[in-house]
Amino acid sequence: MAARRSSRLSGEDRLIAQYFKPLAKHPGALGLSDDAAFIKPPSGCDIVLTVDAIVSGVHFLPDDPAETVARKALGVNLSDLAAKGARPLGCLLTLALPGKTSAVWLAGFARGLRRETLRLGCPLLGGDTVRTPGPLSVSVTAFGAVPSRRMVRRAGARAGDIVYVSGTIGDATLGLLLRQKPGEVRRLGLEAKATRRLIDRYRVPRPRLLLAEALRRHASAAMDVSDGLVGDLRKLCRASDAGAEIESGLVPLSKDTARALAARPRLLDRILSGGDDYEVLCSVRPSRAKRFEHAASAAGVPVTRIGQIVRGSEVRVAGPDGRPMRLARGSFSHF
Amino acid sequence: MAARRSSRLSGEDRLIAQYFKPLAKHPGALGLSDDAAFIKPPSGCDIVLTVDAIVSGVHFLPDDPAETVARKALGVNLSDLAAKGARPLGCLLTLALPGKTSAVWLAGFARGLRRETLRLGCPLLGGDTVRTPGPLSVSVTAFGAVPSRRMVRRAGARAGDIVYVSGTIGDATLGLLLRQKPGEVRRLGLEAKATRRLIDRYRVPRPRLLLAEALRRHASAAMDVSDGLVGDLRKLCRASDAGAEIESGLVPLSKDTARALAARPRLLDRILSGGDDYEVLCSVRPSRAKRFEHAASAAGVPVTRIGQIVRGSEVRVAGPDGRPMRLARGSFSHF
Repeated sequence: MAARRSSRLSGEDRLIAQYFKPLAKHPGALGLSDDAAFIKPPSGCDIVLTVDAIVSGVHFLPDDPAETVARKALGVNLSDLAAKGARPLGCLLTLALPGKTSAVWLAGFARGLRRETLRLGCPLLGGDTVRTPGPLSVSVTAFGAVPSRRMVRRAGARAGDIVYVSGTIGDATLGLLLRQKPGEVRRLGLEAKATRRLIDRYRVPRPRLLLAEALRRHASAAMDVSDGLVGDLRKLCRASDAGAEIESGLVPLSKDTARALAARPRLLDRILSGGDDYEVLCSVRPSRAKRFEHAASAAGVPVTRIGQIVRGSEVRVAGPDGRPMRLARGSFSHF
Repeated sequence: MAARRSSRLSGEDRLIAQYFKPLAKHPGALGLSDDAAFIKPPSGCDIVLTVDAIVSGVHFLPDDPAETVARKALGVNLSDLAAKGARPLGCLLTLALPGKTSAVWLAGFARGLRRETLRLGCPLLGGDTVRTPGPLSVSVTAFGAVPSRRMVRRAGARAGDIVYVSGTIGDATLGLLLRQKPGEVRRLGLEAKATRRLIDRYRVPRPRLLLAEALRRHASAAMDVSDGLVGDLRKLCRASDAGAEIESGLVPLSKDTARALAARPRLLDRILSGGDDYEVLCSVRPSRAKRFEHAASAAGVPVTRIGQIVRGSEVRVAGPDGRPMRLARGSFSHF
């Protein structure tokens, strides 16, 4: 976060001092006044590293509140750490700001970042701010710790393993739909509160950090669901050189999403393949299933069996009628 | 680098597979096919963390070769690690690509990144690629190792310490000038080879990794010179709660920059305050000066005494006539 390319007490220095220094209390952050930060790695641990960027108009809506933009930028990365069985150690922030970014926006962003770094136990250690003629974008690098050689991989699922997913699926993609087409609210029979809950799921990921230990102890493979349940299951299967069969009727839905689906059954495709769930998808050997379920329950994280890993390379989804579904979208892609 | 928001074998997956997988041989990179990477921290070491982003049209020129853009993105970060006394362990890459980015550009970028990660011993461990409606930008997070509690800080200089700088100062900012105003080449009496050398200094930082151990053993404070010698010295002094006096006549210049300065003495201001040198600025206690100079010489890195740390908070620069200079620019800033 040390200022680059800045004059005596330049705009960037002032910006950092005013908005971000108060967040950087960790000794390794050096008050954001050095070229680099440091962490003392916990002994017997590997360091897990992940980076994800979010771009205005691509990964969040330009009029999303600054607080939720900060919380999303951090959350999408901590969701990766959680799925890998890691606990957060800290993060670095790169903020690319258009010239017209307001002080009100920055104050809101800093407030959201402060709230989320404290809530999720992931201190801000440093970063970089740059001007851009393009859209506002936020990139977070997050560091976590796992006991040596115990990071949970995507590869590792094998035929017979049970496929689980945490929480509920589809809320975030419906939240995005309601933001983009407010007219849908009435058509789907949703109340104002339900609409707010779904939009909030789109804006703010809830990384499943409490599930990390259960995954490390019991999962054969895991990843977070960021690009849609079915597409991400395909990735897990590809990495594991396996296939999977899941039942759409077993996929856990919130009561809001269940209501929307009842009003418009065609939404099932979007629910199964839309992005931004930030739940954990994992496979568990049958012999460990009970222990995994108990560990997840003890951690307070709901997990649901949705199918199993099979031989081959196909991911098959049984629809409500029991017949194989053909998903139009696969998963969400910006490419 | 695991694909986010991508369809079955989406553009991003293909792009990663084609251009970046061949670079990611480190076991912790998991072939770029997982959500996260990992490193095993060397025992007895702290992990040093730094991130810097470069934006097309801001930190590099839109028609700079893709190879040098990759090398610059990595180099500016490894320069930070070097100044902190760290050795590189690996890096993560975030690439924000406009829709029109060509395969030729990507292939060149991957070639430059491969060359530089190998040359500098800093393997690619992972990253993220996103589409942006804005300019191309590259953010690199680099990780290094230093023996516990031995990271070299900006704070630590005290009155009486000798101020050193590595290599030569001003080449990169003259290189930028020659790129922006090609007419200057003739006016400054520069040959084609000299022009190429200066432009190359602008495009490709040479991080002083070989100096890291000498800094760790002997420097009281250090930082890399990215925003201009004088402005960066001010930052080091501010962090150390001290001032400094340097002599412009002692600042080391390449023969190309010395020639340009002889042709146009007014360039001195730009040389002392222009950006992109990526040399190391440090302070050393007088009792350690000889040992520091020997260690730097043994490492093959030229270092030059340019002044000393003094009480107070002012940074004074004596001009060619011995009188205090007033620098118009201070240091380079985009804010």
